[in-house]
Amino acid sequence: MPRCPHVVVVGGGFAGLQAARCLRRENVRVTLVDKRNYHLFQPLLYQVATGGLSPANIAVPLRRILNKQRNCETLLAEVVDFDLDHNRLLLADGALEYDFLVVAAGASQCYFGNEKWQIHAPSLKTLEDASVIRRKIYFAFEAAERETSTDMRKSWLTFIIVGGGPTGVELAGAIAEIARETLRYDFRHINPSDTRILVVDSEPHILSMYSERLAIRAANKLQMIGVEIMNCCRVCDVQNDSVTIRDSNGQTSRILTKNILWAAGVSANPLGRNLAAAANGDVDRSGRVVVDGYLRMGSDNVFAVGDMACVKNQSGHTLPGLAPVAMQQGKFVANVICRLVSHQALPPPFEYRDPGSMATIGRAAAVAVIGHREFYGFTAWLLWLTVHLFGIVLFQNRMQVLAQWSWNYLTFSRSARLITGVEHPRIGNGTEVHDQAAH
Amino acid sequence: MPRCPHVVVVGGGFAGLQAARCLRRENVRVTLVDKRNYHLFQPLLYQVATGGLSPANIAVPLRRILNKQRNCETLLAEVVDFDLDHNRLLLADGALEYDFLVVAAGASQCYFGNEKWQIHAPSLKTLEDASVIRRKIYFAFEAAERETSTDMRKSWLTFIIVGGGPTGVELAGAIAEIARETLRYDFRHINPSDTRILVVDSEPHILSMYSERLAIRAANKLQMIGVEIMNCCRVCDVQNDSVTIRDSNGQTSRILTKNILWAAGVSANPLGRNLAAAANGDVDRSGRVVVDGYLRMGSDNVFAVGDMACVKNQSGHTLPGLAPVAMQQGKFVANVICRLVSHQALPPPFEYRDPGSMATIGRAAAVAVIGHREFYGFTAWLLWLTVHLFGIVLFQNRMQVLAQWSWNYLTFSRSARLITGVEHPRIGNGTEVHDQAAH
Repeated sequence: MPRCPHVVVVGGGFAGLQAARCLRRENVRVTLVDKRNYHLFQPLLYQVATGGLSPANIAVPLRRILNKQRNCETLLAEVVDFDLDHNRLLLADGALEYDFLVVAAGASQCYFGNEKWQIHAPSLKTLEDASVIRRKIYFAFEAAERETSTDMRKSWLTFIIVGGGPTGVELAGAIAEIARETLRYDFRHINPSDTRILVVDSEPHILSMYSERLAIRAANKLQMIGVEIMNCCRVCDVQNDSVTIRDSNGQTSRILTKNILWAAGVSANPLGRNLAAAANGDVDRSGRVVVDGYLRMGSDNVFAVGDMACVKNQSGHTLPGLAPVAMQQGKFVANVICRLVSHQALPPPFEYRDPGSMATIGRAAAVAVIGHREFYGFTAWLLWLTVHLFGIVLFQNRMQVLAQWSWNYLTFSRSARLITGVEHPRIGNGTEVHDQAAH
Repeated sequence: MPRCPHVVVVGGGFAGLQAARCLRRENVRVTLVDKRNYHLFQPLLYQVATGGLSPANIAVPLRRILNKQRNCETLLAEVVDFDLDHNRLLLADGALEYDFLVVAAGASQCYFGNEKWQIHAPSLKTLEDASVIRRKIYFAFEAAERETSTDMRKSWLTFIIVGGGPTGVELAGAIAEIARETLRYDFRHINPSDTRILVVDSEPHILSMYSERLAIRAANKLQMIGVEIMNCCRVCDVQNDSVTIRDSNGQTSRILTKNILWAAGVSANPLGRNLAAAANGDVDRSGRVVVDGYLRMGSDNVFAVGDMACVKNQSGHTLPGLAPVAMQQGKFVANVICRLVSHQALPPPFEYRDPGSMATIGRAAAVAVIGHREFYGFTAWLLWLTVHLFGIVLFQNRMQVLAQWSWNYLTFSRSARLITGVEHPRIGNGTEVHDQAAH
């Protein structure tokens, strides 16, 4: 009897987890390697960042998801490089041999060469990021309450969100609700509804992946709840207390603000470059690994999937970094591996079946596209709610999120609005909160 | 009309919050100063540290509790010293004048002069501490799973809890349940139930504040669920990988372990010493401020309450640092201030009415004393459950905790078992998790 092939999956996100689970009935050994001990339901991360949900509501221990899968083990470890010639994965503290390798290490935020902006303009990709942003948002109101200079107070109450994609729009909508509703009665020296919220986007419309019609409706809704939108604008400088913006005419303006959030641009995990180098392959502009129709990298036994892979659809567009793309790729690769193991013919190359996409704009409003149908407003929001609730992996989390959402919806409350992770926040003395040990 | 007196309360724990709330109908202005933006329900902190509850379940924003109290404002600020001669409170970034001052800044863990042990043996007083301990506990199992040396594996699976008071006992019981039940099916190379859990206590019995009979029953229950108890023993050294213990005969033994948790000894907030120095007063051995029968410090308008105050009961014993003590003191001081403001006679001096005390030992077991009656086991546990549920301030948190507890009880699950706050945990290369930026 031949020995059981070893499939190593790097990353427990949507793509990696799906690949591991789809191999559960096959005659292979699966090892899932992740530097985190949990699967993160990233589409709801903005709710943690705005205090609507707790981290544990959207993060599920990987071991718990996989504990009944007999042919799978989970490893908490950090991958540092690939030795494809010897079928070895190099860890920060060891190595791991494989017969098949599935790399699904995801993506992180991209500052387009201005990584130094990150300290003043945090982005939202991990639970730690969400804590930083949550602290930043709620601390700003505390600081404004104590501030005596009118200009400084205005600066604390100005939120700039860079990027008008789904994350930027979701953050802006949530901050508007916090300012207008959640904190309404909480302060004595400021009126939280004086808060200025700006979304800066380089495209002519926010949510540029949607039709112009939907994008305009979304923009109108945002403006209705008090969010200003600056289209065709780019950020050209970020400081501790300001952001400088250049519009399409080349004119720059500087806006004083203590709160800049970065939701523009994504680049693949740096491991993508290592993988491409090891396989003599290429990466695209965003650092994503260029793969063939079977999501392979040169070698027959190495696959890249999810946000890390550059895959084109039939019309030649690169597939976006969305959960359904990642999950379909994970499932596809599992199928390819099964067939290789059992010496069957390969299936046709990967093809993405678009189940639709959606984004929330704020309380009870969303945009959604399913097939050729567009939805807007409350209907789209109900769709969004249902899809996201069912997307969450475990039954218990689903119930928690449903209960929390119902409560938040009825009471406008956000109970998880804790400023944690900093021993002594200080106001007005130049010490920035995010300069200190984070999360 | 005389101007409205200004009462400044330092600390939003049980004592300070109670004082502020009891002044809600009085003709005073109240300012509650805290360096945190939330009230923490500390009795359940061990549940966050063991992944049973999320931080937001037991922490409620102070502004939300007080937002309807018209005569009260909340200030996020750090107090650094007292200028009693000028009725001024000195903040890290400003100052605040008062007519009455109530200091309720709580207590922190005490290492009896061995503060350097803290890095290897974290204690449990804040939400950040709870994250550190949660990470430590769950990381230990991950490390053991990957460890190839039998000795090192044993060392990762050994938990030493220093201190056999309620916190130590609650932690030990919870870790036993994690090892025997929660993680039962999660690992492939270790059996989590091999975990060794030791409670080291300097007294002849754990839970020394209870009767010997109750303490012995509690010890038996702990031993039944796999916890070893070392009585009459003191820790004389703590290292990165071991703890040295001296027994009552003076014999020392060294136990190899990667997991040491500190639950022994409490000392008052260092502000206690500042306050005593400013008032020409005294502190006791634990740094608590010695106050008179009206909880005052020399001056007529300065009070110290809660864990920071050294108050003796009629039999001459110092009152313990418990929530009911703090709350009764907060209420008492509010009453004294009202009477002073309205020029009424003072009430009789403070007297503690003991409503009873209780501690959980593990799943469905607890000890409780109410009046002269002692309870043990399931009855005591139900009592504990009810009291703690009703103690939680807001209705929503109560419902969340109840739902989470029911689920945990039925399924043995602990969904909040996230290892967060460290970008790249490493195993076996000498880099300690708690050496890195915490929480």
